[in-house]
Amino acid sequence: MEKKSLNVVIVGGGFGGLSAAKSLAKSQDIKVTLVDKKNYHLFQPLLYQVAMAGLSPAEIAYPLRALLASHKNVDILLGDVKVINKEEKYVETATNRVFFDYLILACGSTYTYFNAPQWEPFAPGLKTISQATEIRRRVFLAFEKAERENDPQKQKMYTTFVVVGGGPTGVELAGSLGEITRYSILKDFNHILTYQTKIILIEAGPRILPSMTPELSREAVRELDQLGVEVRVNTKVSEINEQGIRAGNEFIESETILWAAGVAANPLNKSLGAELDRQGRVIVKHDLSIPGHPDIFVIGDQAHYKWGAEEAPLPGLAPVAMQQGRFVAKLIKKSVHAPRTLERFKYVDKGQMATIGRSRAVAMYKGLHFSGFVAWLAWLLVHIYYLIGFKNRLFVLFQWAWTYLTFRRGARLIVEKE
Amino acid sequence: MEKKSLNVVIVGGGFGGLSAAKSLAKSQDIKVTLVDKKNYHLFQPLLYQVAMAGLSPAEIAYPLRALLASHKNVDILLGDVKVINKEEKYVETATNRVFFDYLILACGSTYTYFNAPQWEPFAPGLKTISQATEIRRRVFLAFEKAERENDPQKQKMYTTFVVVGGGPTGVELAGSLGEITRYSILKDFNHILTYQTKIILIEAGPRILPSMTPELSREAVRELDQLGVEVRVNTKVSEINEQGIRAGNEFIESETILWAAGVAANPLNKSLGAELDRQGRVIVKHDLSIPGHPDIFVIGDQAHYKWGAEEAPLPGLAPVAMQQGRFVAKLIKKSVHAPRTLERFKYVDKGQMATIGRSRAVAMYKGLHFSGFVAWLAWLLVHIYYLIGFKNRLFVLFQWAWTYLTFRRGARLIVEKE
Repeated sequence: MEKKSLNVVIVGGGFGGLSAAKSLAKSQDIKVTLVDKKNYHLFQPLLYQVAMAGLSPAEIAYPLRALLASHKNVDILLGDVKVINKEEKYVETATNRVFFDYLILACGSTYTYFNAPQWEPFAPGLKTISQATEIRRRVFLAFEKAERENDPQKQKMYTTFVVVGGGPTGVELAGSLGEITRYSILKDFNHILTYQTKIILIEAGPRILPSMTPELSREAVRELDQLGVEVRVNTKVSEINEQGIRAGNEFIESETILWAAGVAANPLNKSLGAELDRQGRVIVKHDLSIPGHPDIFVIGDQAHYKWGAEEAPLPGLAPVAMQQGRFVAKLIKKSVHAPRTLERFKYVDKGQMATIGRSRAVAMYKGLHFSGFVAWLAWLLVHIYYLIGFKNRLFVLFQWAWTYLTFRRGARLIVEKE
Repeated sequence: MEKKSLNVVIVGGGFGGLSAAKSLAKSQDIKVTLVDKKNYHLFQPLLYQVAMAGLSPAEIAYPLRALLASHKNVDILLGDVKVINKEEKYVETATNRVFFDYLILACGSTYTYFNAPQWEPFAPGLKTISQATEIRRRVFLAFEKAERENDPQKQKMYTTFVVVGGGPTGVELAGSLGEITRYSILKDFNHILTYQTKIILIEAGPRILPSMTPELSREAVRELDQLGVEVRVNTKVSEINEQGIRAGNEFIESETILWAAGVAANPLNKSLGAELDRQGRVIVKHDLSIPGHPDIFVIGDQAHYKWGAEEAPLPGLAPVAMQQGRFVAKLIKKSVHAPRTLERFKYVDKGQMATIGRSRAVAMYKGLHFSGFVAWLAWLLVHIYYLIGFKNRLFVLFQWAWTYLTFRRGARLIVEKE
């Protein structure tokens, strides 16, 4: 049997944690324990497709055990880490305590409703599969309610959809809703007038997709407009309840409000004793460890890593998390045989993209900008390439081809809550 | 516009209701309203595959609106029928009242826990998609719990699975569990010993698959045994709680108990004023109408139709419901132009089959009996042929081929409850 000299605990099986685990799995001197509260890796960038009935959960989620089955030095522990003991060097779930020589925290982020948690039941966010299926349930139930309603005022309320937050997820949700009302729904209902459906995308800042260039923001607004989505910028939300949403000075009557604003890092961060930024992310050192604890690393959406001339934090993107995971794994592997030296994480920019609908997207890569069909094709290829597992790639490609050709969304099931 | 002379209301979009709706949809003189509490048709015979992570919900469920989109004389109403008024001739949901000239009730059946409804939380049945995903969650969570457990006694409890009911669903669930423990799970876990996992199938009667021949029952027991499933017949369940199940004289410690026994018809039947059988099914006349109300039909699992020399009720199978749906539709279509005559429903026996696992099944058709690979192949072809939608057929075929070749179940996600 191999000599196991180092115990590495990874918390979180997202893009960061998984890439760290895979890099470490090849090493004989290291025993890895991957702790996650879910038993699967979720391909988050396509989660909005599950919410919008384009894909099924199993097509974008892959069991962690299947991903790491060939690596016998990796244990997977299903559980939610509640305690981190930095001095005695262990983490604890409700059922187990696991000791570490190195700890990698890759817990991602969650939505925050700022100081208004009471809004959540009326405006679900999109971070988990069950949230995605809940959003799907609400959207398609709204159409059913409109179909059986005779009061035009109420029918209008049921066919008004509001998306809060103009980042990539908000844009993708609003664009898909536009497509569904324009194409998929039209032929299925006898009593809904498509031109009466209304989709409003609300952004507090001066433009949508603020991490992209102003030209691409404008292009996204234009493409959304073609799908019937009304974009309102510089608009603050002051109230959400069962009747609708107050945005700016107007109260919009709607039963279907989706939340894609206000990201916050994991609450676990507060227990680390390290400095946090305004969003609750841990401000990490140049090797991604936390001050005073060179054996504890924080990566991905959970970390605030200053980068570039402006020392701005790196954005919450999959390539950032994956590169950081691999960097930390390499650093740990080196430390088995040699004393550790201070290394510096260097980010290689992979660009950014957001899809808006069939043949509609915006993308930027190394100073180049794309929009329309070319950007959409790039988006499609990149997402299918990074999807995990040959079968899932094939399925998703086929699903998309099918939806593209037929305008039919196969997964629009309203699954009862129990 | 066509003259709409007859209003037909169909309650339930299962095999019976859907085949009635499709037959009637072709007729210009008839306006159909299909009422269902779900927005999709569910291919119930494959629901156990969703529970056992072989398929995703969207692969066996198809939106009713998509199925009937081309027929503009069919309205679909999402709702649960709570009231049937036979004299004023309307049905009512929480939101709508719909008047009928003819009513077709095709509400199917549900599981009953006899006089012990308190068992349900510990032993879920398998009738809906959310029950299927709940069963999936419990099964795969049990393996996760066993993996992280150090106490061998508790580990044994987590890896003991009990299925109650030796009908086709019970046999299919037990067989799949056998396959999962034998093949799929083995390579994914580091701390579970496969030979310690235990699957017990409990049947109160003298043999499993009682609607088939004794030879096929024996063959099914043999094939289940090869997958490590222990079959206990003549065994009554007297208690189910969070610790386990009392079956016969033994208390079996288990956290994962699945219920596939005790079918009961829709509670709505009690309000019809017609005679019911012991399972609560409506005893219908030879034209499937109820006594005193020739304009109200009951079909499928909800009906008790005496058939054959023994005047035994027809079994709760898809072909029965589909043939009855088409028979009633034909009868109604004829009544538009001609006075109604008494007709008699004649059942064409399509045989029966149950699958046990990869290459293992039992089937009977017109006095012929099959088992093993031939029966399994027949089962596969019949189920794929009857699956609705070209895309779903292709997907399911591909999924099965994949699982067959790789022993991998793609859909084994434990989706959190919220």
